[in-house]
Parts: sequence; structure tokens; C-alpha cells
Amino acid sequence: MNKTPIIIDVDTGIDDAVSIVVALQSDKLDIRGITTVAGNQTIEKTTRNTLDIVEYFGRDDIPVAKGYSKPLVRDQIIAAYAHGESGLGTAKLPTAKKQPHDLDAVSFMKKTLEESNDKITLVPTGPLTNIAILLLSYPHIKDKIEKIVLMGGGAYEGNSTSTAEFNIFADPESANIVFSSGVKIVMCGLDVTMKAIVTYNEIKNIMATGTKAGEFCGEAFKFYYDMYKKGSRIDGCAVHDAVTMAYLIKPEIITAKPANVKIDIDGKNSYACTATDFRPWRDISKDNALVCLDIDREAFVDIILDACKNYK
Amino acid sequence: MNKTPIIIDVDTGIDDAVSIVVALQSDKLDIRGITTVAGNQTIEKTTRNTLDIVEYFGRDDIPVAKGYSKPLVRDQIIAAYAHGESGLGTAKLPTAKKQPHDLDAVSFMKKTLEESNDKITLVPTGPLTNIAILLLSYPHIKDKIEKIVLMGGGAYEGNSTSTAEFNIFADPESANIVFSSGVKIVMCGLDVTMKAIVTYNEIKNIMATGTKAGEFCGEAFKFYYDMYKKGSRIDGCAVHDAVTMAYLIKPEIITAKPANVKIDIDGKNSYACTATDFRPWRDISKDNALVCLDIDREAFVDIILDACKNYK
Amino acid sequence: MNKTPIIIDVDTGIDDAVSIVVALQSDKLDIRGITTVAGNQTIEKTTRNTLDIVEYFGRDDIPVAKGYSKPLVRDQIIAAYAHGESGLGTAKLPTAKKQPHDLDAVSFMKKTLEESNDKITLVPTGPLTNIAILLLSYPHIKDKIEKIVLMGGGAYEGNSTSTAEFNIFADPESANIVFSSGVKIVMCGLDVTMKAIVTYNEIKNIMATGTKAGEFCGEAFKFYYDMYKKGSRIDGCAVHDAVTMAYLIKPEIITAKPANVKIDIDGKNSYACTATDFRPWRDISKDNALVCLDIDREAFVDIILDACKNYK
Amino acid sequence: MNKTPIIIDVDTGIDDAVSIVVALQSDKLDIRGITTVAGNQTIEKTTRNTLDIVEYFGRDDIPVAKGYSKPLVRDQIIAAYAHGESGLGTAKLPTAKKQPHDLDAVSFMKKTLEESNDKITLVPTGPLTNIAILLLSYPHIKDKIEKIVLMGGGAYEGNSTSTAEFNIFADPESANIVFSSGVKIVMCGLDVTMKAIVTYNEIKNIMATGTKAGEFCGEAFKFYYDMYKKGSRIDGCAVHDAVTMAYLIKPEIITAKPANVKIDIDGKNSYACTATDFRPWRDISKDNALVCLDIDREAFVDIILDACKNYK
Repeated sequence: MNKTPIIIDVDTGIDDAVSIVVALQSDKLDIRGITTVAGNQTIEKTTRNTLDIVEYFGRDDIPVAKGYSKPLVRDQIIAAYAHGESGLGTAKLPTAKKQPHDLDAVSFMKKTLEESNDKITLVPTGPLTNIAILLLSYPHIKDKIEKIVLMGGGAYEGNSTSTAEFNIFADPESANIVFSSGVKIVMCGLDVTMKAIVTYNEIKNIMATGTKAGEFCGEAFKFYYDMYKKGSRIDGCAVHDAVTMAYLIKPEIITAKPANVKIDIDGKNSYACTATDFRPWRDISKDNALVCLDIDREAFVDIILDACKNYK
Repeated sequence: MNKTPIIIDVDTGIDDAVSIVVALQSDKLDIRGITTVAGNQTIEKTTRNTLDIVEYFGRDDIPVAKGYSKPLVRDQIIAAYAHGESGLGTAKLPTAKKQPHDLDAVSFMKKTLEESNDKITLVPTGPLTNIAILLLSYPHIKDKIEKIVLMGGGAYEGNSTSTAEFNIFADPESANIVFSSGVKIVMCGLDVTMKAIVTYNEIKNIMATGTKAGEFCGEAFKFYYDMYKKGSRIDGCAVHDAVTMAYLIKPEIITAKPANVKIDIDGKNSYACTATDFRPWRDISKDNALVCLDIDREAFVDIILDACKNYK
Repeated sequence: MNKTPIIIDVDTGIDDAVSIVVALQSDKLDIRGITTVAGNQTIEKTTRNTLDIVEYFGRDDIPVAKGYSKPLVRDQIIAAYAHGESGLGTAKLPTAKKQPHDLDAVSFMKKTLEESNDKITLVPTGPLTNIAILLLSYPHIKDKIEKIVLMGGGAYEGNSTSTAEFNIFADPESANIVFSSGVKIVMCGLDVTMKAIVTYNEIKNIMATGTKAGEFCGEAFKFYYDMYKKGSRIDGCAVHDAVTMAYLIKPEIITAKPANVKIDIDGKNSYACTATDFRPWRDISKDNALVCLDIDREAFVDIILDACKNYK
Repeated sequence: MNKTPIIIDVDTGIDDAVSIVVALQSDKLDIRGITTVAGNQTIEKTTRNTLDIVEYFGRDDIPVAKGYSKPLVRDQIIAAYAHGESGLGTAKLPTAKKQPHDLDAVSFMKKTLEESNDKITLVPTGPLTNIAILLLSYPHIKDKIEKIVLMGGGAYEGNSTSTAEFNIFADPESANIVFSSGVKIVMCGLDVTMKAIVTYNEIKNIMATGTKAGEFCGEAFKFYYDMYKKGSRIDGCAVHDAVTMAYLIKPEIITAKPANVKIDIDGKNSYACTATDFRPWRDISKDNALVCLDIDREAFVDIILDACKNYK
């Protein structure tokens, strides 16, 4: 069976961490590298967390390249309220000896894509700064990108504002470059990710696997769980970023519709809105995204649970 | 039983027309006047249509006052594609002898509200130009307004653009004034009105009542029906404006949620979006609208059918 | 000699006050009425000040009509820092018995224009809210307006922001309606009004006239003088609003150039900028304003001094 | 005498070409490299022109690195109307054998700055795309930049629009990044560059030098001259970009004032305006630019004439 070659672009982050763990354990994915970006936390912390995870799970072979520390145009925001001061809630990992790649994230992606025989799928689960600069700096590289499966936005929902999701809100101008680049996008936004919930009991099951992976994920979920209970009044964690991996591993559990998605980069109320056009009379030749809307929740949780159980 | 006193503000328009017919026949509503505004068609045509309807249905006693011919800030748009050149599709009415009121719409509303012992509910089913200028010119008048039950916007849907509904899109700056005025708003937007559909067979039933009202509404629906079939791929007509009357006559058939609604007046993609904040962690003390989301469709159709049947 | 019929629209204000005094004494102007608007101070205070001035100077025959209390779209700002709590600095006038006209400002302007045989020149020296609503509500009235000679904006200068002048900044959306109305505009902006300075010694000369007018103007200038010394580092007062009257009484002392002026209603840095197009290759058929750029300062001061001296 | 180390960033362009010629001949400047950007023409043509000039004037030792082909956010514009299809008007140069540097512009600037013992002055005379990405990608590099002496903007004038100058208008979002970067800026905008005019007779004098440099510059001016005559109604060429070199070689011939300059990235009329705050009461601790306002025109022309005469 052919594995899908991917580069993961992360702002690790509790749900990025779980998403990476799922990817690391999957036999359907071939991780060519992980690049980091500022988002849930500063670039120093998201890079630190990523290195620590990769080394802790014994995958020193995967290069980790450090990317942008600031959004393209707007002032920087981070999400310490959701991911804690470290970015991983209360989960603690040994500090890795592994160092970031010599190349910065954009240069690393460029080189990796250029040298690959296969097209590679990009999987960004943070702000789209690295991806935007990559596409802007090296337009020819688009030919080597299979598609971009991203966590971000929402056709019907926002969280940072009533209309904007955090990853897009953190760098809307980069999102605009990516969504208007012509590269095929699969958008795993709040519409689907707010349904990708792991309940309290399921978190217990994950911890009960007793594996390194299960214990790490379980611990990471704790911090997240409290936030969702207080803020969203949900009895569980929405594991946003891992939906991208679910899409790559088992697309059949996700419902999606094609649409034209535009990023609002100039409005006050709707700044960073992923304005999604599903209107039947739109010009469908301009559709640029497949917008994920629903997920088989239990099948999704099984993907995470299996990744933890089968940890080796 | 006390009737609810209302002033209807219309850009007549096929669905405005049906909405007026429903209101005229209802024994629960006390129509203190109808004001006109440019929207579906020019102010000349929307005023003409309104006068004709009121006279045709024998209600010369209801004053009709002519309002604004242009939106507050943006360039004017009309919706001839949806309502035809006359604004009433292929329906034809005798030209009324009735003349518009001596006062313009805003002056008429001001006087009527000032002279009323009861608070009055405003029911705008077109662009909010008249209402905005009323609230802006005479802030003290807010005390005499019970609430504003309007057709416009959408928490999750747009039609003029992917995020904007026609009435709001036709004059977003006025909508902004109304939504930030402090007056309580019931928003019947596309979320509910796209579910307020009269099917092909039901249109036939309405015509089959054989009354003046039934024949007029049935004929008006014809033009609308074709548009919905081609554009929205719906086998029926969404009778947007009449949802406001359904809310006033039988609120129990409509599901609604409180929210904070802001009008986007500066973005390019999301211009005129009714950015609706349902987030559980929002500041609910700033909620300014009750947002209608669902309707018992058959009960809704019955309201129209009964209005036509019981025509006298 | 024919007098020029005018309606003055004011947010009185120190320099509005001086401007009114100049107009009252001029035998070249026929004041058909004064309308008030919020701006330098709230509508209550600007109306109070205007009534007081008109009565104090024995011109009870001139109707004063009260206008808008808020700008069209933006949040209200006032300029207490420049005009003091009363709006007239430290100058004090007896409270007039005179009452505002029965009609509000817009209705009064409409009626006055409709009933006049001659075209009338509008002279707004505050935010353009009243004028905008007038033009929007009664488009036919444009035929009765000779031109609009206004204080506002600046081709090269701002004061409220680096690019925006106070009167325009206080209601840019109304300014936009006025500047795009098709009515001919003479713009007395900061380019010329910051050169229309009365020096310390000249203020003394004005007081030394010993007339009611001289003493009132002199006292009003005191507060203004201190502000200009501290803020603008000018040894004198820029009597902005009176430049409009100078233009009407002695246009030959003012240098002006035609231009296309657009109002910026959507930018963050340049919100309310009067973007002035003097480029030689612009489409001059779209010129909408005569932009005043320079003034014979001494001749300007003489107009004020003479108005005070000749007080009767 | 110490030479000032510079990197020139160009969109060559007639006036960039003359600016480069002046720099090449100056014994006060140490050119560490030239980077190219899209602007007056496409990146292919601006790079071609730059290579050709450098080789034609015998300076193969200077590296030329190719930069961004598109602006950061907005759609691309070029200025063929001002610089002709080739970008050099009717001037023709032999096609150089010289190749662009292996590194792209941003990587080249990064490396050159990092490896330099001295701080280097950046001299961009095109859109600021390269400089913005440099500052964004490698914030630490700011310590190695002496200052940025740029051609762009205008405190009082625009050319692409009434408020925006071409270089800024071609990439306002990049300009915003540069102007808010904290690096000291000297802004040679239209205020000064529209006074930096070479007259018809002076063009003749330049050609009459008979040197390679004089003949090339003279020929390049021809196309430019016609445009200025028709468009700006000026009897001569404004040699915008060369003002940056004049500032570096003979700063005493230029008058400048400190200011806070903000770039308007969201307005419609004032998009790309360099909103310049000279107000005496502004917070001068936020001044980010020295804004050049006037130039000793004859001394400026002498700099160009001398560069041509002394060609060796």
C-alpha cells in the first residue's frame, strides 16, 4: 500500500500534539517533515513542543524546521488561554536533544518538495504564515503540492470572533494568499471540528491504554477539557487539528461540500471570516475548497484511541 | 382581545405583497399605516404597488406614506431579477386612486408614534433606510416603539453575496443604525425564511380558494416560483417577508435564539453580513436581537392559506 | 446691490460665533435662517449658543432651527478641548428668550428653499449631518441650492488625525453624501483656514473697538488663543469658520483651485480624509469642488475688525 | 574617506537605471549588491535590465539577486505607460552574459548583512516586497541595517491615485511592514522627487558628455520626457529614484522633516496613502521617518551630469 507523503505545519498546541501522535502511529502516512509556526504559542514554544514530541516518541528521523514568528500583516495573538503557558496544558515532556533543521521552515518545504518524486500533501494546523510565504516566494512549487488539508475557518461558526476561527484570525492575510493560490484545499473548520469531540469517559479510555501515547494524550486533554467545560459548555474536548489526520486516514467518516471560500481581510466585524459560498447559483468553476461539515464522531475517537493503543 | 398595533415598512415586492395581504386579513393586527422604501424596486414602483394593494383589498383607510428613494451611503441596487419589472412579477392590479400620505414616511412614523397611546411594533420587510433615519432624527421616539420585527440578514446564510442578504445588502449602513439603536429586534433572516416555503401544490391550493386574495397571491407566486426553481433549485417559493407576520400572529410556530448581531459595513467579502454571535461565552448583556432559526412550515402555509380563504 | 441669500448651518463654537457675527453685520448677505448641528459641542449647547448670539445682537427676526444630535454612522465626538465646556470658551452671553423654530433643521431648510424665489447658498461650518439628510431626503431641493460654501477638510492637512479635519472627521459618511451630491462645493479647509489667523495684537484691536461685537469676539478668542499657542504653536487664532463668510463677502482675497474631492469612509489611518485630486491628468469633468488654498490674511482680519467696528 | 556600504533594491525602470548609474560612478558609495523586484515592469524585465546595466558599465563584480515577482497581498500592477515595454523606454543595451546570483534577493540580503562587519544602508527604489519579507523572516537582521533610504510615497502628493505614489501603491502591505519595522527610514517621496527635475536642455547637456553613461541616460530620459510633458505638463523629467543617491552623496542639498508615517492598507480612496503626521502636537517619540520635502534642483542635476561626465 502506498503511504500518503505529507509535511505537517504546526503551532503545537494540545490538539496539534494529538494530531502529530496520530500521524506518527499511522501506517498510511509518510511524514517527510514537520515545520513550526507561531500560533497557539510563540514560535519558541511551538518549536520546543514539536521537537520534544518527535523525540519522545522515538522519531528522531523526522526533520523539524522552525518557521515564522509573526503573522504577515496583523499584530500577533497567541492562545495561552486554550493551551496553557507551555502550549501543552499540564502535559510535560523531557526536553529533547534534537535540534531544529538547519533550514528555516519555508526553505525546508521548498527543498523537500523540489526533491520529492511524488507530490506531497501539506497539512497545516496553525496559522498559514509559512505556507503563504512558500507559495508567494516560489510559485513553481505549487506543481509539487498534492493538496492542502488544513484546520482553520468555519462556514457557519467562529470562535475568536463571532465569524472568525483562531488559526485564520491569527493571520488572515496569509490565509488569503493560500486560499487564492489555486492549490486545492480541504478545509477542516469549526463546522466539523466542533463535532470531533472526545468525551470525558473516552479520555479515561485513552489514558487507560497505559501506553506512552495514551498517557501523554490523556494528560494533554485535561487542560483542554476544563476550558471547553467553562467556555463552550461542552462535556469533552474538540480535537480540532486531528480532524486533518482523520481526513487523510479515513476520509469516508467525514462529510464535505465543495465551495468558494474567501478570506475577509478588511472588515471590522468579519475580519478573518472564511466567507463560504455554497449558493447553488454561484460560479462553481471558482470553487477552491472542499469544506468539511460533519464527522462520524465515534469513528474519529477510535482513530485516536487506536493510535494510542497500538503505540510501539 | 387586544390587537397588536403595527406600522409596516415595505419595498413591495412579491413577498411584501403577500405579507401585506396576510396582515390585512388578520384580526390580531392593527395596521396603523404602511410606509414605503426603495428596495426590491424603485421607490416609485414600491409605492405604486403598495397603494394598489391597499385599495384593491378595500382598505383605503390605511395611510400609505412614501419614504426614501436611496440607501444612506452605498449605491442603490434593486432586485428586478426576483420581483420583475413592476415588482409584483406577472400579477396585475388596477391603478389605485389612493394617493400617498402628505407626510413622508419618516415624518408619518414620527407623528403616528407620538400620537399613539400604545407602543407600536415596526415591521420592516425592505431595506432599513426609513427606520434608520427615524431613529437617528428622533431618538426620543424609541420609547414608543414596542420592538422591530424585521425580515433581513441571516446568521448562517446569504443570498446577495455568500454572507449578505438582500435587504441588509441594499442598505447596510442603515441596518447598522437600527441594530445598534437599542430597540429590541426580532430578526427573521434567511435561516428561517428559506424554510418558509410554499410548494407548487400549495400555490395551487391558494389559487383554488377563488378569492381576490387567493388569486392575487397565486399569480404573484408564479414569477417567484420560476426564479427559485432555476436559482435555488427549490420546488416552491420562500415567502420571506410573510414570516414577520407569522411571528406576530403565531410566534409559537417559530424557533429563535437570542444573540448579538452586528452589521459589517466595511469589509469587501463580508460587507452587509449580519455577524451573529451565539458563542456561549459572549457577553449576553449585549444581545440585541432574537434570531429566528426554524419554522413549522405547514403551519406557516396555513396562515397564508387561511388569510386567502377568509378574505372578505 | 443684490444681497446673497444664505442659510448658515453651525455647531457654534468659537469660530462659528465669529463667523455669525461677521454675517450679521454684512450688507452683502441675506441670512434666511440658521440651523444647528452637533459638532464642537452637543446639539443642546450649539443650539443654545446660536439662539443667544442671534438675540444678543438684536436679530430675533432670524429663525434658528435645531438639527441632528448625532452623526450618521460613526460614534459621536465633540471638541470641548478647543471650544470649552460651553462651546464659547470663556465668553458669556445672556440666555436668550428666543426659542428654536418649530421645524427641525432639515424640514426648515427644505421649506425655506422650496418657498424661495432665488437660489440659496448653504454655509455649513460644522459636521455635514443636516445637509446630508436634506440632500438624501429631498433630492429635488438641489435645484434650489446655489452652492455650498463650507468649512471642512484639507487637501494637505489634518487636525483630528494626520489626514482628517474635525468637521469631516465628526461625520465622514455625511460629508461623503454631500461631496458626491452633484451640488457645487467651495471647500474652505485647513489649507486656507490655518492661514486665516488673527494675531494677539489684532485681538486687542478687536476688543478695543469697544462695541458689543468687538468685546464678544475678543473674549471668545481668548480661550482659542491659548489652545493654538500650546497645540499648534501659533501666536494667534485660526478663525476657520469665518473664512466661509470672507469667501462670500470678498472672494478676491482667496486663492482656490478646482479639484475632485472624495471622502474616505473606510480606511483606518485615512478615515475622513478629503482625498483631493489636483493631478493634471485627472478627469476634470468630475471636479466637484473649488478648493481654497490661500488668503490675504490682513484683508481677512479687516473683515472681522470692520464687522465689529461697524456694529449697530 | 569611508564609503557608505549599500544594497540597492530596484525595479529597473528608467529612473532606477539613472540612479544605478549615479551610484556606480560615486566614490562615496560601496555597492554590496543589487536586488530586483517587480514594479515598473515584471520581475523578468527588471532583472534583465539590471544585469544589462551592471555589465554594460563594467561592474560584473556586483552581484545581482532576483527577488519577488508579486506584491504581498494586492493584485500586481506595473507601470509600462511610464517606462515602456522593456522598462527602459527606448534605451537599448546589449544582453548581458551575467547571471543572477544563486540566492534569491531576500536570502542574498540576509547573507550579505549577516556577513558584513559594518551596518549596511538599504536603498529600495521600487515596491518594498523584498524588504518586507526580509524584515519579517529575519527580525534579527534589523541590527545590521543602518537605515532605509527609499523612493516612495508623498506627504502631500500622489500619482497612482490622488493620495498614493506608485511604489507604495504597488505593494502597500509590504510598505506597512517596512514603515512599522522600527528601522529608521528616509522617505524620498513625490514631495521632493517632483522637484528633482532634469530639463530638456539639461538632458541635452547630459547626452553631450558623449560618454557611455551620458548617452545611455540621455536616451532613457527621452521616453520619460514625453510622458511628463503630456501627463504632468512639466518640461522635463522627474528623476525620482536618483534622489535617494543624492541624499546619500550630498544630503545637504535636501530639506527634510521628521514625521510619523503610516501606510493606509484598508481604505478605498486612500489605499496606499503614506499618511504623514507633521502635527506639532503629535507624539514625536513615534516618529519613524525623515520625510524629504525640497531639493536644490541644480545641485541635483549636477550630480547626474558629473556621474556621466566622469564615467570611466
